[in-house]
Amino acid sequence: MTSPAAPKAAPKKDPWDLPDVSGLTVGVLGGTGDQGRGLAYRLARAGQRVIIGSRAAERAQQAAGELGEGVEGAENAECARRSDVVIIAVPWEGHGKTLEALRDDLAGKLVVDCVNPLGFDKKGAYALKPEEGSAAEQAAALLPDSRVTAAFHHLSAVLLADPAVEEIETDVMVLGEVRDDCEIVQALAGRIPGMRGVYAGRLRNAHQVESLVANLISVNRRYRAHAGVRLTDV
Amino acid sequence: MTSPAAPKAAPKKDPWDLPDVSGLTVGVLGGTGDQGRGLAYRLARAGQRVIIGSRAAERAQQAAGELGEGVEGAENAECARRSDVVIIAVPWEGHGKTLEALRDDLAGKLVVDCVNPLGFDKKGAYALKPEEGSAAEQAAALLPDSRVTAAFHHLSAVLLADPAVEEIETDVMVLGEVRDDCEIVQALAGRIPGMRGVYAGRLRNAHQVESLVANLISVNRRYRAHAGVRLTDV
Repeated sequence: MTSPAAPKAAPKKDPWDLPDVSGLTVGVLGGTGDQGRGLAYRLARAGQRVIIGSRAAERAQQAAGELGEGVEGAENAECARRSDVVIIAVPWEGHGKTLEALRDDLAGKLVVDCVNPLGFDKKGAYALKPEEGSAAEQAAALLPDSRVTAAFHHLSAVLLADPAVEEIETDVMVLGEVRDDCEIVQALAGRIPGMRGVYAGRLRNAHQVESLVANLISVNRRYRAHAGVRLTDV
Repeated sequence: MTSPAAPKAAPKKDPWDLPDVSGLTVGVLGGTGDQGRGLAYRLARAGQRVIIGSRAAERAQQAAGELGEGVEGAENAECARRSDVVIIAVPWEGHGKTLEALRDDLAGKLVVDCVNPLGFDKKGAYALKPEEGSAAEQAAALLPDSRVTAAFHHLSAVLLADPAVEEIETDVMVLGEVRDDCEIVQALAGRIPGMRGVYAGRLRNAHQVESLVANLISVNRRYRAHAGVRLTDV
């Protein structure tokens, strides 16, 4: 029994009550790669302002022009500075060095790491284990002044890029330490038709989400599919 | 151009053409735990012959009696010997020792590891990394004479146990080195209404599938759900 004077517990927040993110500018570092281009295209098509970043401004601008939908291109540092939310879609090989060089430009930004550290050999894809635990935890270690989350790991670049595909039927697992940050990323995912952003844990549980892509590659081979993930009962 | 004498490539096998497993006896080691009981119940309800195993025959028989559906109970070694397929649903803490002690009883058997090595602290669940890479790889190392696969990681024990739940809406990711073995496990999963067994890679990619349960626990907390996984476009 609680005493009548005890403060009442605050009502639980509806986990689907997500913020309006339509005014945010989204940067995509590594925006000239398949994953980055695809995400940039989908977000822009959903009405988001998008800037893709690359090491060379010209390449970014060229890729942006090809994507249309109002996407802009800029050198990585400028892309980071002009954006509210910055998606990291660079290859795993350059991940640490790229982020380290952009630490100041990414300060204060909401960073969304979507990098999957994978190795490949004759038997297919397999998970690499970053020293920090995951690509996302590496980002968090290298970017102490940014708000680091992880999401968008399981999307098929083929489906993202295909203009004939109207809906991408998948859930986006969003990981992070701060609820408000995760909810912004969830809301962004939810702007893309068919997609839903679902909170799926803290960054220390990012490794398995990143490396599940190795399994999806096996699924795609066996079933000739572009497999995505849905969470049931949610 | 191939020469007319060249042998034609065999037609690709339909990945959904799975074997008839209705005559197989399924043992469930750790069958008195929540996950094991739930799986035993669902498989038996689907018409499979099921024996649950425990360290003490009496406890297994008691649990079997409570489950009904013709489930039998036996001491672990007898359960293994009398079964064609043996599901490992023991707690991670006793996993290695249990399997080592049953090596001879499990020789020649199709072993299905469904153990999730997790740790828990104030912040929730997190993945443990077994020395061998995963629980399934530990099983494969300890059971050189068995055919080791991994599956049934993401099932809600609550849903499995609830007799009012008619269908379990989820895909079961099945991992293993030998296609025929995986297909038997896929077919077993497919006997449970709502479930589908999907091949999802080799054992070296089991860790992320096992530890994804930590993320599902986060999902369940946030959304008050019993989350499962579906693969889209498959």
